[in-house]
Amino acid sequence: MAGVSASTVSRILNGQVDSSRRDAVEAAIKKLRFKPNLVAKSLRSGVSMTIGVLMQDFDNPYTSHAATGVEDELRSSGYTPILVSGHWSREGDETERVRLLMSRKIDGIVVIGGRLSDAQLLDLSEHQPIVVIGRECHGPRLRSLDIDQRGGGYMATRHLIELGHRRIAHISGIEYQPDAIARMQGYMDAHRDAGLSVDQRLVVRGDFSEPGGLRAMQALLDSGIGFTAVFAANDPTLNGARLALFNRGIDVPGQVSLVGFDGLPPSEYCVPPTTTVRQPIYEMGCTAARELLRLLGVKQLNDTPIGSLELRLVVRGTTAAPPHSAD
Amino acid sequence: MAGVSASTVSRILNGQVDSSRRDAVEAAIKKLRFKPNLVAKSLRSGVSMTIGVLMQDFDNPYTSHAATGVEDELRSSGYTPILVSGHWSREGDETERVRLLMSRKIDGIVVIGGRLSDAQLLDLSEHQPIVVIGRECHGPRLRSLDIDQRGGGYMATRHLIELGHRRIAHISGIEYQPDAIARMQGYMDAHRDAGLSVDQRLVVRGDFSEPGGLRAMQALLDSGIGFTAVFAANDPTLNGARLALFNRGIDVPGQVSLVGFDGLPPSEYCVPPTTTVRQPIYEMGCTAARELLRLLGVKQLNDTPIGSLELRLVVRGTTAAPPHSAD
Repeated sequence: MAGVSASTVSRILNGQVDSSRRDAVEAAIKKLRFKPNLVAKSLRSGVSMTIGVLMQDFDNPYTSHAATGVEDELRSSGYTPILVSGHWSREGDETERVRLLMSRKIDGIVVIGGRLSDAQLLDLSEHQPIVVIGRECHGPRLRSLDIDQRGGGYMATRHLIELGHRRIAHISGIEYQPDAIARMQGYMDAHRDAGLSVDQRLVVRGDFSEPGGLRAMQALLDSGIGFTAVFAANDPTLNGARLALFNRGIDVPGQVSLVGFDGLPPSEYCVPPTTTVRQPIYEMGCTAARELLRLLGVKQLNDTPIGSLELRLVVRGTTAAPPHSAD
Repeated sequence: MAGVSASTVSRILNGQVDSSRRDAVEAAIKKLRFKPNLVAKSLRSGVSMTIGVLMQDFDNPYTSHAATGVEDELRSSGYTPILVSGHWSREGDETERVRLLMSRKIDGIVVIGGRLSDAQLLDLSEHQPIVVIGRECHGPRLRSLDIDQRGGGYMATRHLIELGHRRIAHISGIEYQPDAIARMQGYMDAHRDAGLSVDQRLVVRGDFSEPGGLRAMQALLDSGIGFTAVFAANDPTLNGARLALFNRGIDVPGQVSLVGFDGLPPSEYCVPPTTTVRQPIYEMGCTAARELLRLLGVKQLNDTPIGSLELRLVVRGTTAAPPHSAD
């Protein structure tokens, strides 16, 4: 349409400006309903209007929800996120993926979770400003947003104690992940503050997944050790545990109470709806985007308040007082 | 570390090769644990080893699962996906996002769902090879993978008819989406083939979400029109409907049977586990990636068979024969 080869268009779109033919190409771009202002702006200024998001796994609804927060917040400023995944379990992948993002002409990066060290993040932030969700680390072009996971574990466990439970099990997350460790510490803290001791046999390992929660609950039930409530390290773990109870005809919350962690929207539509510690992960995504725009010196077009960044216990249908026989 | 400015590193990573200082930068890249071969390959050949994935919404577990399939399949060939979202509801966004992908030096594109027309896809494929999931369209550098949504709706409804249900409601999806229309047609087809007529009052509109399913089921129950089973247009819709039944003390499947659509892994961990039509969406993602590599002329390193691309009815705990009183 512009009377030039595809490779010329490609070079122009890649910012290798070939000025004599740029006008024709820009006209064609317009006709093809590309947004000419944004293209032109990017061509002239070297600003890509793009933010890279490094998440751990495309398939994780928790981090996907954060990415949606990033996107929704960026929209009003005309920025677009592009996502790459890093994979918790594969060392080296993450730095590789950050490099990939940087080579794609982005203006800044949001990192959600992951295993990059503080030193690596600081190094990387020399190239491009970075905001990290779920960590605490700072630098001239590095900001972080942390969630008090330990306080959340405390909140979940205290709720069960206040309902009268004394035999409370914990199904943990992946053992090396800081979130999993902090939530378990909160579980311990709540016992200590209530003058209760933890029966270590009631602490079983999960892996933040439904199958992990199912297996852990089967192991608990098979052990024959009594309990009337469970704090599950996240909602998928709770769902697995709930199914194990269902399969043995044990009523929730009549015989066993369950508290989860995350509180994504679908947790409200379980049967019964899940009592859980809601993480403000969407709001974290919004806040991270706003913080990154600030680091980039972009005038903020959106000043609507973002919801609270505090954890919140949401009491729904999976918790109740313990059955009388267990008192 | 390389003794050059950040902007030089940036230019080199962007492929604007500044050869005199490239060695120092590549050494630093190596020390920082970037993968030097991939960087070097990309610098020299102009091949980015990157595939763009256009999805509609980061927060949708269904399309996220497809993206994971794309990623898992690409891994063995050394390619990496980057994701952008297009948003069903926003006209113009999608072409803009494809342009964004193209400007980021990618080698090809996988499109998952969306509203781009066949002509637009064909145009865009002149610049870069494209594989589309959930459509039927073809061109020299355009391939598509489609799923028989109508057949899936048929399968779900026939299962209920075979169990003995005669009063079967349908909670539909978003009315303009082809998938929603096709599944409803399948529901109609199954009635026709069984010699049953559809009571149009039992067809209510949902929107593929839990709240939509909840509202639709409340409306059905409030209408007082009898039914013993429901085909929900997808699993989130089913979950909303299930909660509405739970809230009124109606037993699933004792009093009402439910069949959903999608069959993502969490559907197995509902209580009771969900009877659903499983879509091979992960396998579609894998297949799309393999097809794209073929279009790119890349030697396939992974020849393990990909699972079936057929829809499959998965009978679990939400369906049973109708209660006697309804016969």
